[in-house]
Amino acid sequence: MGTTQLESVPEPKYWHLKTVLSEALDSEFAVGEILPNERDLAARFGVARATLRQALEQLELEGRLQRRRGVGTTVAPPRMGVAVGTDRGSWPGAPGDDWQPADSEPAVPPADVARALETGPDELVHTVRRTRVSHGQPVAAELLYVPSSSVPDLTAIDAPAGPARARAVLRELDRLALEGQDRAVELGSARADDARALDRLPGAPVLVVTTRFLAGGRTAALSVATYRADTCRLTFGDEGAVEIHHGPERQAS
Amino acid sequence: MGTTQLESVPEPKYWHLKTVLSEALDSEFAVGEILPNERDLAARFGVARATLRQALEQLELEGRLQRRRGVGTTVAPPRMGVAVGTDRGSWPGAPGDDWQPADSEPAVPPADVARALETGPDELVHTVRRTRVSHGQPVAAELLYVPSSSVPDLTAIDAPAGPARARAVLRELDRLALEGQDRAVELGSARADDARALDRLPGAPVLVVTTRFLAGGRTAALSVATYRADTCRLTFGDEGAVEIHHGPERQAS
Repeated sequence: MGTTQLESVPEPKYWHLKTVLSEALDSEFAVGEILPNERDLAARFGVARATLRQALEQLELEGRLQRRRGVGTTVAPPRMGVAVGTDRGSWPGAPGDDWQPADSEPAVPPADVARALETGPDELVHTVRRTRVSHGQPVAAELLYVPSSSVPDLTAIDAPAGPARARAVLRELDRLALEGQDRAVELGSARADDARALDRLPGAPVLVVTTRFLAGGRTAALSVATYRADTCRLTFGDEGAVEIHHGPERQAS
Repeated sequence: MGTTQLESVPEPKYWHLKTVLSEALDSEFAVGEILPNERDLAARFGVARATLRQALEQLELEGRLQRRRGVGTTVAPPRMGVAVGTDRGSWPGAPGDDWQPADSEPAVPPADVARALETGPDELVHTVRRTRVSHGQPVAAELLYVPSSSVPDLTAIDAPAGPARARAVLRELDRLALEGQDRAVELGSARADDARALDRLPGAPVLVVTTRFLAGGRTAALSVATYRADTCRLTFGDEGAVEIHHGPERQAS
């Protein structure tokens, strides 16, 4: 990894260090390899621990490094392209959908969700929890909110709880004619329940995808899906596989 | 803001503190208001500075707080919904497009971009820099890569540099029949040039949107757009305005 001293460089030290570290990751480390500890790395590059940590945080945000519980900091594999919303015409749980229904229970949704669903302030809705696995890893956790009015024929005795109940809700939802859907993507931090499902620590950066399913001229269901921001690149469109990574510094001159 | 002591709570302290702080933001603070300093906040809630900082970082990721240079930590307004890719059939620079062309120069693209564009390893392409302003704030910075083969009639003497050159490249690009586009969204950290354009510090979390424009059976142009993750919620679809915020804790029981 060399012994370049960074003391004399005019740009922010952590920024230059990040570039140097990024090149070292490309040339000297294999995917999955554990980095030397912070003290050794800081000494090798002649920087303070705080500077090193800033550079490591940048590389983690960019998906080049992963911090794993009980393992340390490892070199991350390229992010997985995970298709979001290629099928504008299908409900959650349609054939070919790679989400696993985990559970279903009645719950009062958060105020903003209730507003979108036009349910009363203390009205219970069906919630369905699902997880999505890609390449053998959990990549997303979803909470789907379905007002009773969208699934009027669902009975409590049919399948009272668990994955069977979740499938029953999705099956009933599928009877409605889907008119369209829209989505929003934003940065968030993993809530404790999602973090557990995604094998991350609470508070890890996640991409939150909110999808509104429209039927009968209103929002018939609303999904809040939390994707791991470290391992996922969300893809939209028919092709769905833009193989561009953002690790290395842009060379625009 | 109360004086609740958090010593006896079993869940991670910063997590509970985040929830308590979030409620305080809703009830006691106005948008734009500056939070008390870290020492005062830590003392008030009976937590260590490190715990407080973790909670503040979470709230920043979730878009509830903003750290602003020379100002301090302020209560953030709700994120802006910024439409991405509602028009599947238009080139960058189409009428109604709210991007401002800033500059254009020839450059060798990064290796992964060159691969997508099928240009040679040291081949120059046209780059166009644009910025997007929404509600009076810069929300995104874009670097668009256009191979010479996509704009064969562009001449060097026409408009040699600056915004006029950028507009000339876009005008030539518009002559091609656009066959489709696909997109990927991922987490990144702001590069120095983008950070300047977005009024952020280098390394701030950003949402990187990569768009591939398809014409003549190949990738005729490729855009890498960097959106502020703190202020933006990217919207997809015809409706384009899912008004769901993720600040408050989900109440799923």
